[in-house]
Amino acid sequence: MITRMSSLFLRTLREDPADAEVPSHKLLVRAGYVRRVAPGVYSWLPLGWRVLRNVERVIREEMDAIGAQEVHFPALLPREAYESTGRWTEYGSTLFRLKDRKNADYLLGPTHEELFTLMVKGEFSSYKDYPVVLYQIQNKYRDEERPRAGILRGREFVMKDSYSFDLDDDGLSASYQAHRDAYIRIFERLGIEYHIVSAVSGAMGGSASEEFLAPAEVGEDTYVRCLESGYAANVEAVTTPAPPARPIEGLPAAQVHHTPDTPTIETLVTFLNGAGLGREFTAADTLKNVIVKTKLPAAKEWTLLAVGLPGDREVDLKRLEAAVAPAEVALLEEADFKANPWLVKGYIGPKALQDNGVRYLVDPRVVTGTAWVTGADKPDHHVVDLVAGRDFTPDGTIEAAEVREGDESPDGGGKLVMARGIEIGHIFQLGRKYADAFGLDALGPDSKPVRITMGSYGIGVSRALAVIAEQRADDKGLVWPREIAPADVHVVVAGKDEAVREGGERIAAELDAAGVRVLLDDRKASPGVKFADAELVGVPTILVVGRGLANGVVEVKDRATGERVEIGVDKVVDHLVELCRS
Amino acid sequence: MITRMSSLFLRTLREDPADAEVPSHKLLVRAGYVRRVAPGVYSWLPLGWRVLRNVERVIREEMDAIGAQEVHFPALLPREAYESTGRWTEYGSTLFRLKDRKNADYLLGPTHEELFTLMVKGEFSSYKDYPVVLYQIQNKYRDEERPRAGILRGREFVMKDSYSFDLDDDGLSASYQAHRDAYIRIFERLGIEYHIVSAVSGAMGGSASEEFLAPAEVGEDTYVRCLESGYAANVEAVTTPAPPARPIEGLPAAQVHHTPDTPTIETLVTFLNGAGLGREFTAADTLKNVIVKTKLPAAKEWTLLAVGLPGDREVDLKRLEAAVAPAEVALLEEADFKANPWLVKGYIGPKALQDNGVRYLVDPRVVTGTAWVTGADKPDHHVVDLVAGRDFTPDGTIEAAEVREGDESPDGGGKLVMARGIEIGHIFQLGRKYADAFGLDALGPDSKPVRITMGSYGIGVSRALAVIAEQRADDKGLVWPREIAPADVHVVVAGKDEAVREGGERIAAELDAAGVRVLLDDRKASPGVKFADAELVGVPTILVVGRGLANGVVEVKDRATGERVEIGVDKVVDHLVELCRS
Repeated sequence: MITRMSSLFLRTLREDPADAEVPSHKLLVRAGYVRRVAPGVYSWLPLGWRVLRNVERVIREEMDAIGAQEVHFPALLPREAYESTGRWTEYGSTLFRLKDRKNADYLLGPTHEELFTLMVKGEFSSYKDYPVVLYQIQNKYRDEERPRAGILRGREFVMKDSYSFDLDDDGLSASYQAHRDAYIRIFERLGIEYHIVSAVSGAMGGSASEEFLAPAEVGEDTYVRCLESGYAANVEAVTTPAPPARPIEGLPAAQVHHTPDTPTIETLVTFLNGAGLGREFTAADTLKNVIVKTKLPAAKEWTLLAVGLPGDREVDLKRLEAAVAPAEVALLEEADFKANPWLVKGYIGPKALQDNGVRYLVDPRVVTGTAWVTGADKPDHHVVDLVAGRDFTPDGTIEAAEVREGDESPDGGGKLVMARGIEIGHIFQLGRKYADAFGLDALGPDSKPVRITMGSYGIGVSRALAVIAEQRADDKGLVWPREIAPADVHVVVAGKDEAVREGGERIAAELDAAGVRVLLDDRKASPGVKFADAELVGVPTILVVGRGLANGVVEVKDRATGERVEIGVDKVVDHLVELCRS
Repeated sequence: MITRMSSLFLRTLREDPADAEVPSHKLLVRAGYVRRVAPGVYSWLPLGWRVLRNVERVIREEMDAIGAQEVHFPALLPREAYESTGRWTEYGSTLFRLKDRKNADYLLGPTHEELFTLMVKGEFSSYKDYPVVLYQIQNKYRDEERPRAGILRGREFVMKDSYSFDLDDDGLSASYQAHRDAYIRIFERLGIEYHIVSAVSGAMGGSASEEFLAPAEVGEDTYVRCLESGYAANVEAVTTPAPPARPIEGLPAAQVHHTPDTPTIETLVTFLNGAGLGREFTAADTLKNVIVKTKLPAAKEWTLLAVGLPGDREVDLKRLEAAVAPAEVALLEEADFKANPWLVKGYIGPKALQDNGVRYLVDPRVVTGTAWVTGADKPDHHVVDLVAGRDFTPDGTIEAAEVREGDESPDGGGKLVMARGIEIGHIFQLGRKYADAFGLDALGPDSKPVRITMGSYGIGVSRALAVIAEQRADDKGLVWPREIAPADVHVVVAGKDEAVREGGERIAAELDAAGVRVLLDDRKASPGVKFADAELVGVPTILVVGRGLANGVVEVKDRATGERVEIGVDKVVDHLVELCRS
């Protein structure tokens, strides 16, 4: 069926929408693909819906190809299952909660591990039943604090989530690898540029969790790569190589100095270098102690946590959050300082922290034998040559310091470079957490129960569409890969001449008959308007039927490259059929 | 791709589930199509999901064929739009309401008139843009008081809703007719037996609203048909033919009688016929006054309403509710009688009602000049020969009396017969209600605004699946029409013989290569278990590959008719390909 612009429910916009922040969002709105209904909540217009369904088809085909079986869960879920795993509470205010008319608690599913586990438990009982992989493509709900960037980060969004159920770790590894391979094929077919990065620190097992990140300036995820070794990791997953411990013997004793007006690292370093101490100090010689408060989901009270790190680095709040999850993190407020008068802003040192029972975690660089300039717990005073392992003993280490371009790669392979990206996929060896929560066992060949081990695998479907728009668009509009484009060929009837109109109609009909998906611009608008709309809408091939028709030629334009060729009108249908097949 | 029972996520059940009330639900659970997650909330297993998607495909094809354009709205909707039309309140406790983290009000969409109207208003402005028809296939949410019968009446369910937007009434009629025709094609293709019935009373315009009802014993909708004239209507829409008014002159005067112990119609009639009044009374000669209370959605207080009807008929609460909608109806409680001591239970008459300012509506049979036995407003007393239009004047008429088999058809064409059915579709000329609420105008050719007129058209998609199961199942299991079946052919490998197994595999592979959708039972189970599962699962054609293979024959069984034929193994693939094409 030919899609006709004259009747298509589509109105393109010349101006960027006022509330759109990122290029893909501006273009998806301007080209009439999506419309905003509420913050983070969007409607799909016909072209957008078509592309989204094409993305779903690609995902479905590749999931089916690895033997995954499609099921479908409700979005409206009873509280009980999520209570069993603690996630009813853990999700905090990200979870949409509601009550039904009988006052029973429900939630809108943010992800479905619980339900899948219960479903498999309900159907399967013997080891012979396993392995099994189930998936669904479904609306998910998360009440994001800052929904932004259009459908890149919505509160109602489409996700493919799948779950593998295996009898043992080898099975889980195989299921994980099958998903990894399928994801590679999916993102290749979708024409997305991506990197596969570790999503958990090497310390936790390396390959057990990886993210597929699409490089994009507007991305919310920062990740690092080592171009030499191929290492790639989410910033939250980067581990800091700890230098070897140093001998303590022979180090000078710690000394408290009066350092007036030095509440910042910068003022402190300047003061020290002018104090005639006989050596040069840099910010990296100082130990900055940052106090935050944390709270476990079920806890009522906040607890203080101190993070000690070299003064030339800032705390990366996302890394800190990842390090203490599922606890929440908040900065201190004035009231907290009032409640803890021993906290001397700008001059906090390890001693007061440990005297007051505050948990003190330090950057892995703070190894035994390193000497630091740090706060002396009274205004305008610092201590020099405070030695770790001699003058103070931290409660442990924490990965909370910012990662920088040029840092050593954790695998020792070279320097790190930084990139920004959008998470489009996540594969994760869950292990037995959910099987334990619900007692998911298979009866083994020896009649003994075998606890099932699970993997969880997600693709942001609506987000993938936005990423494709983001990565491939140019200043004229959207550029879709053919596999998911709303049409194969955009036929522009350029001119009011009856012969031109008839020519366009005839070619469109022949293309349609040959199985090519045609978007026909049969409107009465000017050629200029039609050309601009064709560029904006982003169908991969534009066929211009215009004045050349009198000489037997039409123009075929490649939307992505801008390349134009004139082709004989008698050959154009075969040419385009061939183009769309390849 | 061949679906293999050996790895399919499917466990059939031999026993009916305890919580299933209706045959379709029992079978859909037993055959492994759906699973319950919460009251009225279901998950779809692989076979069920496949059938549901096939139903969606049929609907999509027929909607596209009438030029309807598919869009997609969120289910999570902000309160504002529904506030504008009053439905935020009107929906009462059927609406799932929730708040986001910023305490803003949201709802889960029960139907999307508001959003579609706003969407068209956002895109279109000129009369040249119209007409347009938009649709979506989407999850809807209604917090039903009594979710029952599995997916026949869920709280989260799949619906196709479409909306037409026209410049004038003729356009609306054409859009309505196009939908009506498309629905007929859809339900034919789905193999559903149905009747098209009027859903609003003739008084309101006749054809402006029709329901597609599938006859089923478990149906919640009662409807009537006149076999002679073809009239069909939802019971709520049946109008009562009013007899002509009669002359009042010459009728005997009303007389109050002492009628001890006659609080019911039955006791009253028995008393009257034994009281020597010189004539025979029946229940139809009495006027029963039923008092209820009603409340408009936005109202705070309940208001009394009296309904007068012939004593041989009961009030049909659904008809009464439809007549007073959007007001709610409730029966009186003891407290109401206490608050209104003049209400003498069992002896209520028109006089006290009118003296106390209670709105009094009567059945259309209560015309001027009819004489009645009715309550005299004091215990153990009735009045005889109380004449309408002389002794009392009702405030109007109401369609609240039960409709009975054998009643006259409103079109005068004959007697009515009763039937029970399930609503599977509804087409409705909405008119300008929503366009008025949101100011949806098109700029006309004369630059004057033209108010748009709308139609609204729904199909219960998941419900249609259940209806097909309900109407076509037999005592052995489900019976799917080929168009939506989870497979075309269910190949049963009956026997452990290697030749049999190989034969089954080969035929399955050949069928698959020929484009036939194959479900292959390659399990190690006994032939008896496999046959029973094949009947239960309901694929239209069952191919048994068993002992006959040694003699070069296999058996083809039609699931619906039970007919079996033996076919040469060399011909069976061609035979089945042909069968699936026809």
